Amino acid sequence: MPVSAAATSATTDSAADAAVCAPLPVLGRDVLVPLVTGGEVEYAALDIAASAPALQRVWDDVAAYAPYYGSVHRGAGYLSQLSTDLFESSRAEVARFLGCGEGDQVVFTRSTTDSLNLLAAALPADTRVFVFETEHHASLLPWEQRADVEVTYLDAPRTPGQAVETLERALAEREPYANALVCVTGASNVTGELWPVRELAAAAHAHGARIVLDAAQLAPHHPVDIAELDVDWVAFSGHKLYAPFGAGVLAGRADWLQAAEPYLAGGGASRTVARRADGGVDVDWHTTAARHEAGSPNVIGVYAIAAACKALTEAGFEGLVAREQQLVERVRAGLAEVPEVTVLSLFGDDAPRVGVLSFVVEGWNSSHFAAALSAEYGIGVRDGLFCAHPLVRTLLGAESQAPGECGAPEGAPGEQSLNAIRVSFGAGTPDEHVERFVAAVKELVTQGARWSYRTEDGRCVPDTAAAA
Amino acid sequence: MPVSAAATSATTDSAADAAVCAPLPVLGRDVLVPLVTGGEVEYAALDIAASAPALQRVWDDVAAYAPYYGSVHRGAGYLSQLSTDLFESSRAEVARFLGCGEGDQVVFTRSTTDSLNLLAAALPADTRVFVFETEHHASLLPWEQRADVEVTYLDAPRTPGQAVETLERALAEREPYANALVCVTGASNVTGELWPVRELAAAAHAHGARIVLDAAQLAPHHPVDIAELDVDWVAFSGHKLYAPFGAGVLAGRADWLQAAEPYLAGGGASRTVARRADGGVDVDWHTTAARHEAGSPNVIGVYAIAAACKALTEAGFEGLVAREQQLVERVRAGLAEVPEVTVLSLFGDDAPRVGVLSFVVEGWNSSHFAAALSAEYGIGVRDGLFCAHPLVRTLLGAESQAPGECGAPEGAPGEQSLNAIRVSFGAGTPDEHVERFVAAVKELVTQGARWSYRTEDGRCVPDTAAAA
Repeated sequence: MPVSAAATSATTDSAADAAVCAPLPVLGRDVLVPLVTGGEVEYAALDIAASAPALQRVWDDVAAYAPYYGSVHRGAGYLSQLSTDLFESSRAEVARFLGCGEGDQVVFTRSTTDSLNLLAAALPADTRVFVFETEHHASLLPWEQRADVEVTYLDAPRTPGQAVETLERALAEREPYANALVCVTGASNVTGELWPVRELAAAAHAHGARIVLDAAQLAPHHPVDIAELDVDWVAFSGHKLYAPFGAGVLAGRADWLQAAEPYLAGGGASRTVARRADGGVDVDWHTTAARHEAGSPNVIGVYAIAAACKALTEAGFEGLVAREQQLVERVRAGLAEVPEVTVLSLFGDDAPRVGVLSFVVEGWNSSHFAAALSAEYGIGVRDGLFCAHPLVRTLLGAESQAPGECGAPEGAPGEQSLNAIRVSFGAGTPDEHVERFVAAVKELVTQGARWSYRTEDGRCVPDTAAAA
Repeated sequence: MPVSAAATSATTDSAADAAVCAPLPVLGRDVLVPLVTGGEVEYAALDIAASAPALQRVWDDVAAYAPYYGSVHRGAGYLSQLSTDLFESSRAEVARFLGCGEGDQVVFTRSTTDSLNLLAAALPADTRVFVFETEHHASLLPWEQRADVEVTYLDAPRTPGQAVETLERALAEREPYANALVCVTGASNVTGELWPVRELAAAAHAHGARIVLDAAQLAPHHPVDIAELDVDWVAFSGHKLYAPFGAGVLAGRADWLQAAEPYLAGGGASRTVARRADGGVDVDWHTTAARHEAGSPNVIGVYAIAAACKALTEAGFEGLVAREQQLVERVRAGLAEVPEVTVLSLFGDDAPRVGVLSFVVEGWNSSHFAAALSAEYGIGVRDGLFCAHPLVRTLLGAESQAPGECGAPEGAPGEQSLNAIRVSFGAGTPDEHVERFVAAVKELVTQGARWSYRTEDGRCVPDTAAAA
């Protein structure tokens, strides 16, 4: 199946037509942080691919609700009923945001990791799973926890078309199977590159497999429509969607979820519980989303996600995408001017991507470079292997897949390290933060760090002793 | 093993010596709710055994931190490092609050239900589990999810001493076993009665079994010291401890947790991940608490729990207990004056208990009674079977354990129902709420409801049509 450029670059194409939005207000916008070189500067939060600040509107909604917080479900009081309504209307809001249909359920979890572990636990016996080695560990590792599930790890493709071909070949080779699942990311948490989700979904369905979309990095950067993409499930996290209150989402087809054992056993998931004559206990479990949501739900976390969905939609998500793409171009152009910088990419330098880019700097240890960006410029980025070890090692051309601790600073300051630096930004990022980042990279590469750094307790920190 | 009255009533004894504290400020204290009979009244949140309002201090701490929220663990930025330190110092704060020792771990989960499911998943193969039928479903049901685990359900005891004898007999009968676990509540979520935890722990240990304490209802009402109680694990929820931001705790012995498969598979739990030559994937998992905390942690939820632990400790927890016991006595005395009211109890009317009481009213459907307390008095209580079906049916003298949906309103307004009403209160409850509750019960019983109620969508609501 050939993949057209138009199909894979839908994000940038549609964004190009939208009016550019101003950045959305987020918490922490005016937080000042100290510089090791003296003085303070406004913090530039450019690690939002890990966790994003709360949208001001999400915070305002949570703060307005907090005094009305009450026990949900069976509480008879006014605030209990209000909270129950708020919880269930949040579920409806998320369903709208994702374009869910009749046969879909929205289950609230604590994160994308939790969502994918839930789906792994809910797979029918002996399901075959197909996953690219390029996935985040959250999408790579849950499946093999099931002893009866055979996982096929697919090599990193070098074009979107190759991704589809690789998947088709693997599916065909392993037929026949009763049930199969493909798990794929919407946007890489390392390169930010968009994956050909629609084409992969078509390939999966053509071979009788289902597909789950890890939208952890896509949902904050681009509208996700479950029907349009024709995926069976979508998973994402509140804390990457500007709603950092401990909730996540698994949305999609109800059938496997309804048939599976409850993810957590406890109250809320159980409809009735009774002792048997033989001393045992009989349980009748719910078949709604409650089946997998045992325990008191995280009402505030769920409401925060719904508030974020609403805020992004009402602001004009396409306009936010358009602006983010301008920032992507600014960073690309800026880094391209620095020959020592290599931006990591599977699909090529000009492949469509969201506001997530990883790179290495020749002659620099990535941890030291990230530490200098923080200490000397007040810029928060991330260094390491980004919980996607096989992908980063492939991108770095590592000769072996030999293990190394996730993201631990390695080597001396000037020694090229087997890890990378990641910068990420989105709807709440002001232009100035991105400009400062580009200027800082150039300055560090050409003039060097003004301070010394050393590794302490697994962190790279300014070496105050050396400076004194 | 005889159980002394002193041992089981430690809560009230120690509290009697403490100076009585004023109620702690909580959110929602000044929220007005409409009455069906006209006007508005300050909401009385008397369903805190389900979910408690946030302490004002917890909210203030969360609000102060929120702008500084950042990605934890491998973020190089200032706010990432600040957030990582806050997350780990919250862990230390919770460890202090619970009196954890050297060999203990504090694992952050999403709730007590989640904590006990985690422990169930971490049991060594073929562990034997012993649990009283009187437990909340969260402590009753997780164990049998493990196919290799044999669960012994113990009949409801009628004295604390009988509880210990029942457990000892069951343990002895099933010996020998390689590993055994007893799961017991600290305070019943239905009756509020204290269980003889120390004595049960001694019995378990004497028979080579371990014990986990479900402290969901105990921790908000009384200091819990893991060493003093000599339990192996403690589980509790933030949302019942005045910190309703989606986090919970499992604390205790590290050995089984370190040896178990990770609860969730994903980033954070994995130290290194690498492709094998045969195409598979090798994972090296952490052995610290991170092993079971895959995914980005709920930093705000965890910080909120730590803030609550600190607030309760610094306010003088014994003084809060002393005051709560005064409220317990006030409710007991008030309900005792109403012959139609029967307070549910396993261990006798004067057994030590926390601020949680359930009761039925002769000639009243419990759901209608709870609805009238809400609609006519602005009092939020709970009706149903409180996710402890076998216990409530035993307490109500149900002739069979036939199932009935958890807490669904049953029967007509004046028809005695097979469910109960629960009132619960604690450190944030003002005297007036409890006084209003006692007066309302008396008035409803003697004068009847002023309004009609009907069941709609599983809720009991004022029947506005009937009134018009």
